[in-house]
Amino acid sequence: MSISDREAWQRASLERVLLKMDSLGFDAFVVTDLPSIRWLTGFSGSSARLLLTPRASWLFTDSRYRVQARDEVRVVEPVIDAEGFVAALHSGRYPLGGCVALQSDRVSWHEATRIIAAVDERCRVVPVDGFFDEFRMVKSPGELLLMQRAADISCQVLGEVIPMISSSMSECDIAAEISCRHRKLGAQKDSFDPIVASGPRGAMPHAQPSDAHFEPGALIVIDMGCMVDGYASDQTRTVGLGPVCAEAKEVYGIVLEAQQLGVRSARCGMRASELDGIVRSFIAGHGYGDAFGHGLGHGIGLEVHEGLHISPKGETVLQEGMVFTIEPGIYLEGKFGVRIEDTVVMEAGQARSLQNYPREL
Amino acid sequence: MSISDREAWQRASLERVLLKMDSLGFDAFVVTDLPSIRWLTGFSGSSARLLLTPRASWLFTDSRYRVQARDEVRVVEPVIDAEGFVAALHSGRYPLGGCVALQSDRVSWHEATRIIAAVDERCRVVPVDGFFDEFRMVKSPGELLLMQRAADISCQVLGEVIPMISSSMSECDIAAEISCRHRKLGAQKDSFDPIVASGPRGAMPHAQPSDAHFEPGALIVIDMGCMVDGYASDQTRTVGLGPVCAEAKEVYGIVLEAQQLGVRSARCGMRASELDGIVRSFIAGHGYGDAFGHGLGHGIGLEVHEGLHISPKGETVLQEGMVFTIEPGIYLEGKFGVRIEDTVVMEAGQARSLQNYPREL
Repeated sequence: MSISDREAWQRASLERVLLKMDSLGFDAFVVTDLPSIRWLTGFSGSSARLLLTPRASWLFTDSRYRVQARDEVRVVEPVIDAEGFVAALHSGRYPLGGCVALQSDRVSWHEATRIIAAVDERCRVVPVDGFFDEFRMVKSPGELLLMQRAADISCQVLGEVIPMISSSMSECDIAAEISCRHRKLGAQKDSFDPIVASGPRGAMPHAQPSDAHFEPGALIVIDMGCMVDGYASDQTRTVGLGPVCAEAKEVYGIVLEAQQLGVRSARCGMRASELDGIVRSFIAGHGYGDAFGHGLGHGIGLEVHEGLHISPKGETVLQEGMVFTIEPGIYLEGKFGVRIEDTVVMEAGQARSLQNYPREL
Repeated sequence: MSISDREAWQRASLERVLLKMDSLGFDAFVVTDLPSIRWLTGFSGSSARLLLTPRASWLFTDSRYRVQARDEVRVVEPVIDAEGFVAALHSGRYPLGGCVALQSDRVSWHEATRIIAAVDERCRVVPVDGFFDEFRMVKSPGELLLMQRAADISCQVLGEVIPMISSSMSECDIAAEISCRHRKLGAQKDSFDPIVASGPRGAMPHAQPSDAHFEPGALIVIDMGCMVDGYASDQTRTVGLGPVCAEAKEVYGIVLEAQQLGVRSARCGMRASELDGIVRSFIAGHGYGDAFGHGLGHGIGLEVHEGLHISPKGETVLQEGMVFTIEPGIYLEGKFGVRIEDTVVMEAGQARSLQNYPREL
């Protein structure tokens, strides 16, 4: 996406946000979560607060980011304030109006208390939850390009590291190769620490790579993703080192069918819980209901987990342009785990996978 | 550290924490920050809440971490509760007493509101800030071993990557090598994304690596660290690609002297702000006061930034066993930046650097 396209998208987004603020009666909005700040302004630093008002908006950061803020931020005014954001609010230099919204799920209780005290005499502070979800869940074409590039890089890396797996390598070795190759192929970093979990460790959905060498016949769960210009990819494949036992083969087949069922079944207008239920019932029907303990998937974009949950309680209705994962798993404690995951985008009413990496064992 | 040593340390820590709770009149403590949870219990998963009471304590996590919690957690009782932590508090199954402390700087306003509502009829919820700092700032011998190992790995990696820097490599290439080599040498991951910033980009203290190739004569800031069993290292060196200009040499000399002055001057019993002031005055005396915009250093341990700040406002009094960074820098916008950083431990009243990597240009 060109810089001018990005700026136009940010201006349009800011306008939609200000409209929503107006409709909810907010005179000002304090944005505390960095991914939403990046989504709205392009600022990629690790410390910022954003103050939105109908007339003007300001991005507060510290002197470490003076140059970066000036280079990256176009649609709001960057402010370097050594006294800090709360003092700036207190100063009265920034017009707030009577009702200030604050992201209650993205601000600490401590900071909320300080902000409330700073504006106490002038304004009411209203807690707001998930305000940006509806905007950020639906991706722009420019965002989809970056997510596709991130997915492509991870697929290429997966293709490079799978042949390296042998009994002379450890989980950590493969994780190191994944991190390194992500960056060498143009990603800025991993979107999360790669999970490389073999044999019984694969039964821990979030295992950390160990120094354990791979054993012949082991199933190995590889869950990985990278960041490209702030956007994340996420995918999982489970591979066998040589022939695996009959039970592993059977479970693999069930998870693969479940995953494909999930991709095939997703429809715009469907509730997330319904999609989760279709796959969950399928796995339960094969007797492994208790071995699938997590949700079917999650929204993804500027964060690896963002916006919607594809889970029994997921209330989001799937819409065109939404991007999320479909990742059923079966975990048999002490034996092995199998998970297969793609990131999909809702397109023409259905789910299209961003990853084409083979799913066969 | 052996598992039994670690368990003994955790039990002793828990006892000190319960004593402090008692002295402050807390009947229960809700711990929401993962590093403190790891410090107290050894649990390394990414989702947990810890409930401490004088009689018994519980670690709440979700089914993804069932096996890991059972394997890692000894000193408190792991609980897998699909209904979630707030519902568990509300259930009345856990005795809370009349006064519950909650980490206000480590819990979202949203969760704090839900917790307060869940226990409303029975208890008063008290906000507490930095409760664990005094404990976690002073490292045990076992913690120091891990931090030394992390520092050693990063030094070795630095020694491997510096000779690779050439005009055919980019900042991202070197960052990739750093990430990969950290893991291959036994670290679990980077402690933060490596900063590799050359030429004018070095003037941004927190620059992200770019695709820019290195130019002859450029100064290159390399800030990197890794994690070993949860403990972080952090170090910065600035190197030149070939001969650098006279101004760069002069600035380098000032920063190097400033950094060594900081290490030499640190004394137990000294306030952090005093140490910051000694180095800051030295840099200002050379006319570069405005070009050193950040604090002199920060505490480090289970988090890259934790506990104390070595800054003009840093009130912590330096004590035996504290570990922190000393990292002065001079940043000349549009030209270059220089930063030199070691992690030091207070030992026998003085600072000892964990890194021996050469500091000469």
